[in-house]
Amino acid sequence: VNFCSFGDGSGRKGRRMVVVRAEGVGINPDIRKSEEKVVDSVVVTELSKPTTAYCRCWRSKTFPLCDGGHVQHNKATGDNVGPLLLKK
Amino acid sequence: VNFCSFGDGSGRKGRRMVVVRAEGVGINPDIRKSEEKVVDSVVVTELSKPTTAYCRCWRSKTFPLCDGGHVQHNKATGDNVGPLLLKK
Ligand code: FES
Ligand code: FES
Repeated sequence: VNFCSFGDGSGRKGRRMVVVRAEGVGINPDIRKSEEKVVDSVVVTELSKPTTAYCRCWRSKTFPLCDGGHVQHNKATGDNVGPLLLKK
Repeated sequence: VNFCSFGDGSGRKGRRMVVVRAEGVGINPDIRKSEEKVVDSVVVTELSKPTTAYCRCWRSKTFPLCDGGHVQHNKATGDNVGPLLLKK
């Protein structure tokens, strides 16, 4: 599956096509980039709501919680990612 | 933050540079692409292990569980993503 492709800007088709596969591209643009690996822990006994959504798209402004930002990400990129729902 | 950049293959620097920001690129190459949005639910009372790691990198072969695939993803891309740990 290819995620983006484009020409060289010359408007000529079929030349210098560049295809970027998501495999070679990072998925986290901004979250806690000073950390070598962003790992979060949830003590499930401490969950307060019946359902709590955790982000898997790395676009939430309330990471590690989901704020619905995956909707914009999916729309902008054609992706199909969504949260992990923790249910008590 | 830019995730990849490269020239046009000509070896000349500074010409036709293409920069791909992760914002415009999908993050899920292969998992359940027939689904419009991949959402998973965990009933936390049914967790069996003291700690269970859930994938947030979309590279696990045991998705939604983490299989350690984030290590290769981070190494290949310079990214810093990791799992969500659910602790009983
Ligand atoms: S905002 Fe990231 S999964 Fe919802
Ligand atoms: S394999 Fe995806 S976070 Fe570990």
